[in-house]
Amino acid sequence: MLKLYHFWSSTCSRRVRLCLAEKGLEWDSRHVDLGAKFEHLTDWYLKINPGGVVPTLDHDGRLVVESNVILEYLDESFPQVPLRPTEPFARARMRIWMDKFEHVVHRNINLISFNRRFRPRIEKYPPEERQALIAKVPDAERRAALLRRMRHGVSADEEAFAEQCLAAIMDEMEQSLARGPWLLGDEISLADLSIAPFLERFAVNGLDALIDFRARPALGDWWARMQARPCYIETYAFTNPDEE
Amino acid sequence: MLKLYHFWSSTCSRRVRLCLAEKGLEWDSRHVDLGAKFEHLTDWYLKINPGGVVPTLDHDGRLVVESNVILEYLDESFPQVPLRPTEPFARARMRIWMDKFEHVVHRNINLISFNRRFRPRIEKYPPEERQALIAKVPDAERRAALLRRMRHGVSADEEAFAEQCLAAIMDEMEQSLARGPWLLGDEISLADLSIAPFLERFAVNGLDALIDFRARPALGDWWARMQARPCYIETYAFTNPDEE
Repeated sequence: MLKLYHFWSSTCSRRVRLCLAEKGLEWDSRHVDLGAKFEHLTDWYLKINPGGVVPTLDHDGRLVVESNVILEYLDESFPQVPLRPTEPFARARMRIWMDKFEHVVHRNINLISFNRRFRPRIEKYPPEERQALIAKVPDAERRAALLRRMRHGVSADEEAFAEQCLAAIMDEMEQSLARGPWLLGDEISLADLSIAPFLERFAVNGLDALIDFRARPALGDWWARMQARPCYIETYAFTNPDEE
Repeated sequence: MLKLYHFWSSTCSRRVRLCLAEKGLEWDSRHVDLGAKFEHLTDWYLKINPGGVVPTLDHDGRLVVESNVILEYLDESFPQVPLRPTEPFARARMRIWMDKFEHVVHRNINLISFNRRFRPRIEKYPPEERQALIAKVPDAERRAALLRRMRHGVSADEEAFAEQCLAAIMDEMEQSLARGPWLLGDEISLADLSIAPFLERFAVNGLDALIDFRARPALGDWWARMQARPCYIETYAFTNPDEE
């Protein structure tokens, strides 16, 4: 049995939901409210996911964390609808993309989201509760980054630099997708699913230059193709269950 | 034919040499001098490795970059001596380790190495040549970090925090290795090869608390086991070819 601990609008949760949908797998949902409730930092969830991040996949009682790792895990466990190329060189290319999507794209969009989304959320709590919440972030580097941002904010220069780093990755994608239709060529792969939720985040965060597809037409075609795909429609049909 | 572009003492080059040796594969060496010559930032090498980092594997003319990706590539291309578990859950654990070794350990040891090793190296060049060298670093984030460190140095506080992040990973390893003998259990895997060169770096950088094995005895046993292994001896027998 598959059970997913996830948050409706988290990019990393959406990566995994895209993969589950593309493979046609049944799964149970346990929504973890990162938004108003900071439920990912509660004791019960930290026992499931010691890093205090979503998603976590529970497969017959075994817990798998880290969304890109979960994607390869799902492909190895349920190979009926394969989402990785069989050829080692193409697979290496897939992993290089996925690593960039996590460690460049995800990190930089988090920085950009801080002023716009994270700060208003945590400032609904009184100051001492905010401190207590941040103190529960298990990872020392994430905790230090949050504290620094709470104290000093994120400057317009920092945001601009982060956007420039994101633009460089979009340029790389444009080059690959010119030989598309998918990042690795003819077939959709985990690499496409790993980046798709971030394109939607660029839109939500008003990063219009990143999704101005006159500058990157192959990326625009890919994005239209992705949004029309049943796995995307199913993934984005999962809306906030606490806002009925 | 396998040809490795590498530097004798680079941790990421050693990861790949460990894997080649463990698998008993023949390979040609092209030494890229990162030390005195900054050869990784020359035009010819940037054509081979657009990120300007070592190592690069050339397999029959196809170029594979990123050392952890190269490790999985070698295991998929030459499965005769398997270095990944077959079971998907164990494989997920392997990938989580490898991701931490790259994005926590490698990043933090780079910060600690800056004052001790990188700065003296680049300061052998006159100031204007230093600027030109750093301007050739292709990745905007790495370039910005180098410029910031050249201007402001790396503080004792930053070094101490980096060491604390490394210690947390060593503690995690200790916990796993208590059920050893290897990180994933009975068999050596890419995860062990991916971290091994960093333990030697801790010693070279004088980070004695990280390798005080009275505090982490299972890690100490693992390290002795690793250093006695033929693949380790062969990898570390490759010394600087420019210093005969």
